[in-house]
Amino acid sequence: MKVKLAPVDGAVVAPLGFKAGGVFCDIKRLGTGKGSDKGPKRDLAILASEQPCAVAGLFTTNQVCAAPVKLCIPRAAKGVAQAVVVNSGNANACTGRQGMRDALRMADLAEDALGLRRGHAFVASTGRIGVQLPMPQVESGIAACATQLGSDADHAARAAEAIMTSDTRPKQVAVELTLGGRRVRVGGMCKGAGMIQPGMSPNGARPASLPAGLHATMLAFVTTDAAIQAPALQAALTEAVASSFNRITVDGDMSTNDTVLVLANGMAGNPLIGSARHKDFATFQHALQHVCLALAKMIVRDGEGVHRVVTVRVSGARSVAEADAAARAVGNSALVKTSWHGGDPNWGRIIDALGYSPATVVEDKVDIGYSAPGSRKVLWSLRRGQPTKASFADLCRAVAPDEFDLHIRLNLGKGAAILYAADLTEAYVDFNKGNVADPTSLGG
Amino acid sequence: MKVKLAPVDGAVVAPLGFKAGGVFCDIKRLGTGKGSDKGPKRDLAILASEQPCAVAGLFTTNQVCAAPVKLCIPRAAKGVAQAVVVNSGNANACTGRQGMRDALRMADLAEDALGLRRGHAFVASTGRIGVQLPMPQVESGIAACATQLGSDADHAARAAEAIMTSDTRPKQVAVELTLGGRRVRVGGMCKGAGMIQPGMSPNGARPASLPAGLHATMLAFVTTDAAIQAPALQAALTEAVASSFNRITVDGDMSTNDTVLVLANGMAGNPLIGSARHKDFATFQHALQHVCLALAKMIVRDGEGVHRVVTVRVSGARSVAEADAAARAVGNSALVKTSWHGGDPNWGRIIDALGYSPATVVEDKVDIGYSAPGSRKVLWSLRRGQPTKASFADLCRAVAPDEFDLHIRLNLGKGAAILYAADLTEAYVDFNKGNVADPTSLGG
Repeated sequence: MKVKLAPVDGAVVAPLGFKAGGVFCDIKRLGTGKGSDKGPKRDLAILASEQPCAVAGLFTTNQVCAAPVKLCIPRAAKGVAQAVVVNSGNANACTGRQGMRDALRMADLAEDALGLRRGHAFVASTGRIGVQLPMPQVESGIAACATQLGSDADHAARAAEAIMTSDTRPKQVAVELTLGGRRVRVGGMCKGAGMIQPGMSPNGARPASLPAGLHATMLAFVTTDAAIQAPALQAALTEAVASSFNRITVDGDMSTNDTVLVLANGMAGNPLIGSARHKDFATFQHALQHVCLALAKMIVRDGEGVHRVVTVRVSGARSVAEADAAARAVGNSALVKTSWHGGDPNWGRIIDALGYSPATVVEDKVDIGYSAPGSRKVLWSLRRGQPTKASFADLCRAVAPDEFDLHIRLNLGKGAAILYAADLTEAYVDFNKGNVADPTSLGG
Repeated sequence: MKVKLAPVDGAVVAPLGFKAGGVFCDIKRLGTGKGSDKGPKRDLAILASEQPCAVAGLFTTNQVCAAPVKLCIPRAAKGVAQAVVVNSGNANACTGRQGMRDALRMADLAEDALGLRRGHAFVASTGRIGVQLPMPQVESGIAACATQLGSDADHAARAAEAIMTSDTRPKQVAVELTLGGRRVRVGGMCKGAGMIQPGMSPNGARPASLPAGLHATMLAFVTTDAAIQAPALQAALTEAVASSFNRITVDGDMSTNDTVLVLANGMAGNPLIGSARHKDFATFQHALQHVCLALAKMIVRDGEGVHRVVTVRVSGARSVAEADAAARAVGNSALVKTSWHGGDPNWGRIIDALGYSPATVVEDKVDIGYSAPGSRKVLWSLRRGQPTKASFADLCRAVAPDEFDLHIRLNLGKGAAILYAADLTEAYVDFNKGNVADPTSLGG
């Protein structure tokens, strides 16, 4: 469908009635300050709306899930939210009952500081697993941040910085569109970098259709001033995430904390979208999906140590599930990923990965080729299992850019899937081996 | 069971009646010689028996499998072999009909050169995928090698060197035991290094019990002078591989060429083992398993870029299949493997991987600990989902050695599994990104 989306500034505060902020409160306990505007990097963010919002969420399907995820799942099911408080530096995962008490206390503190009703603040955390939250720091951070919220792009940028862990840059986007005759905005921010292969569902339960072994902490927060009821918002988000955040991989590891939340405060005054059958639903969903996909691609581009981003496009599988399994086998193969890093158009490793994937693959039917991102002009290296006449030099040129598309046709059926994947570099290994002499360097 | 196994010299030629050899014939066409005893590295080996042998084999379950695998599967089903010819430097995989003709020609040439019956020579290849074999070089290599076979340890070592690709050293072992009152020997050689997570079956078909996404080229050749019939030999080998080669991973990638062959020529004169119910079967199987496990562990130890070898011991899973899935999720997680490289006892990444594995995991039941290889003295870092009082310094010491055991108890059932795994290092990435300016550096 054609929907006119205009990029706008302000990210999560671009929609009417939202404010955001971020502070440094020393969650890693570097001993350099608390609840202040100074420090090595902001580590606590608050996002809030003037009005209560319809809310929808998707959460990690990891069976080991963090306390804030356990807090948010039942709150999201109730459909109402007015704020989100997020910390980086500590995942509050594998922290037992104390972790649950701390997550709840974060919500309570945010609600009190902002004058919200109980249950209307949501919580997200990212960072090291298995360490209790330093609550004195968190408490001073929430108190300080709540007094420093603003509705300008600078405040949105502070929030986007505060949620970063190993990210090298903040990730933000916003668009404006016309919905039922009114101007409506959708904005978002996210963080990613490592432990990235999300497989999220609305209640954290694993659907049968999720490939076995689905696997960052990625956090994404989307705001809109559209008027839409929570069930319709959930439907729109579930569909949007299925073709965005759930289609990325950096390292194949699914986090304990993956969370996407969308808050809709209705302040744009468009006719209320009451269900997925409403005439404006598809237009809204398109805008939401655009924002989610833009954010998801930023996560892969800024993945730990990533040099090259490869969009794996599988078609002709016997089913969508098989296409997905084939794409993930290729996109998570250590040998394929290192060949991408080396600029090596090694179709042998690709067909090897296809062959061991759960997807049905018939060697002499497989086509493998390359194109510029989004281009249909494909340079085929393999057709029906046979090397083409494409020269090694031309194939090397096709995989030399920072981004390219890998086209795989299994020619067995109609199943298709896209996976946004990345190379595996020495920098990834070096970063993630960490430094045991400095335990604060060790990622979650 | 207790079986006295004495280590002996000679590897694949330790059993009576076997001879071996290896030559350089320039399969990568470096232009430095052909069919000679000189060159950068031997690249063609022959292993042969004076007498026809019972044979058993296991082969990659990759749907894309190499021509020599396709040749060997039906030959193994017939149960008779007298020689194996092996080349390195070229996998003869994804080479279409020409590849099948070349594999058959390799067998025919070996049979002619050695005076064997048609169908009694087996073939294996390892190296780059998707390049046709240089048959003039292969032909001169087979002709030269067939005239240079010997029954001493030096000749066995030449064969073991010739089958190497990225291996840094030859891998050989042999043991002697008493079977039915006679001295019997079992010897073996193998190669591995990268593209290593074998999942082999007798006919290359994927059994339902193989975990989805099982995934080197590993080649192993075992010889014995025991008298045993082919079906019993196959039963013994299938069981041995299930607890050895099929339990290793270097990089999680399953090759198109994985092959294990065992040849039994009966020259020791023990009472013929006619079936798995024979009184001597268990003793023989134990010896075969010992040889397979010793070789399998050498593959992990010499894996590409490997610094640390970790034996992942999962117990208390709801089933053996779940234990296996849990072990593979941990042993193939990029984040867990880089933490091993860093000497970081990061149980957070381990429980994260368990949580996204297909195995059922309940966070507050999980125990995670470390021991020296094979030791029962475990230092627990996590008990019932809670960090123990073990100090970070003590945990760092537990994961500092080149080899250690990782103990994971899910405490949900009786399923147990072992996986021999390895760290992920900058050296692995550097080696596998290759050098596109020198295509001969690019691995299969």
